[in-house]
Amino acid sequence: MTDVDVPESHPRYESLLTRHRIEAGVEKGITSKQGLIAQGRGEAYDYLLGERTIPTADAAARAAAAHLLRADHAVLSINGNVAALVPGEMVELAEATGADLEVNLFNRTEARMEAIADHLREHGAEDVKGLTADGRISGLDHERAKVDADGIGDADVVLVPLEDGDRAEALAEMGKTELVVDLNPLSRSAQTATVPIVDNIIRAIPNVTEHARDLEGDPEAQQQAIDEFDAEAALDAAERAIRGGDIE
Amino acid sequence: MTDVDVPESHPRYESLLTRHRIEAGVEKGITSKQGLIAQGRGEAYDYLLGERTIPTADAAARAAAAHLLRADHAVLSINGNVAALVPGEMVELAEATGADLEVNLFNRTEARMEAIADHLREHGAEDVKGLTADGRISGLDHERAKVDADGIGDADVVLVPLEDGDRAEALAEMGKTELVVDLNPLSRSAQTATVPIVDNIIRAIPNVTEHARDLEGDPEAQQQAIDEFDAEAALDAAERAIRGGDIE
Repeated sequence: MTDVDVPESHPRYESLLTRHRIEAGVEKGITSKQGLIAQGRGEAYDYLLGERTIPTADAAARAAAAHLLRADHAVLSINGNVAALVPGEMVELAEATGADLEVNLFNRTEARMEAIADHLREHGAEDVKGLTADGRISGLDHERAKVDADGIGDADVVLVPLEDGDRAEALAEMGKTELVVDLNPLSRSAQTATVPIVDNIIRAIPNVTEHARDLEGDPEAQQQAIDEFDAEAALDAAERAIRGGDIE
Repeated sequence: MTDVDVPESHPRYESLLTRHRIEAGVEKGITSKQGLIAQGRGEAYDYLLGERTIPTADAAARAAAAHLLRADHAVLSINGNVAALVPGEMVELAEATGADLEVNLFNRTEARMEAIADHLREHGAEDVKGLTADGRISGLDHERAKVDADGIGDADVVLVPLEDGDRAEALAEMGKTELVVDLNPLSRSAQTATVPIVDNIIRAIPNVTEHARDLEGDPEAQQQAIDEFDAEAALDAAERAIRGGDIE
């Protein structure tokens, strides 16, 4: 995280970094209009949450790391905002867990698909899936359903950060273990997930990677991280944190 | 409000209308990237508020209407999102209260100023201020400080919806009676305002107009609306509504 000219100790560092990356995403044709609006929604929830990783979000990140490590085939789904905000961090997480990276857009255009794949490659990705689009998610209309047959189509565990509710539900209905990053604990994506991480993606993805490195090669600790995580309790805690946070 | 192809009874009507207008604003060069992010923040707060006008927001709208009617010189300040979201509604409010309309942008460019003035004229505005820029708000740097000397410069009452905190504070320090529309009760704009209306602008502006029509020619009722409104209590109530709203 060295792409803004502000010291990491600056109180608004994270927020300035986020703003910088999302604007660069627009310049590169990665972030859509809908993506900018979604970014704003996330800012509001993060503000109410106190711009911090709450304990249940940390437990969720640990459980997510365990699921990724134990998967037969894990895939990290990348949309425009994910690519703009955490390109290098997603590549690192893929390397730490042996997961594939797949570009998957709500508003799919070839130009945006290519721009995002290029952006990931610039951040060190070697294999980027999503451009073949020879598989389908059942229960969604044509364009929204497209995935790679040997990517999300074949995966048993998928990380879908900042995902649209319809697609999150459809993926869950296909029986996949779904890991979600979403700052709104009431969203359908968060409600549908096996593991909802209610946290800013800028904080969450490096945190999942750190837990993955810690849990690697320790199947017992992985099992424990999964068993101890209670999705419903985590969503309730996140909502309490957002609703009940102190007034500054 | 007939510019989307959805019946007004549709449960998502307001939200779809908002989305439609903001996207049209981007196409016309009216809404900026920052405006889209701000729109998303507003969506999140409105969602937590229950997408409704709470009683204290209605009381604020009534007090704002009274201030506009009693002003020696009232000005309605228009930025990119205001122009995109409620162009016709602002023109109607100006007519109902005898206020001036002035375009005032945080990121001022001549092209955006002109696009917004044109958009307001298409919605019935006759005189649009803001293009002369021969006045200054004290305490702000050059570009941010520009106003019309015979507009905001001269006004005793200003309605500044969706305004940046710095400018809201600077206007308040100039001794102007400041009426704000902002969905975040913790924002500096809301905290600084004489009358903070914590409501979606799509609901708030027509509501102020309705109250203005009701209060017109009745100085006693105007005085009562102003006296009965308690800004601090209204901000507290709005925060409680956002923080404590029921889970759906």
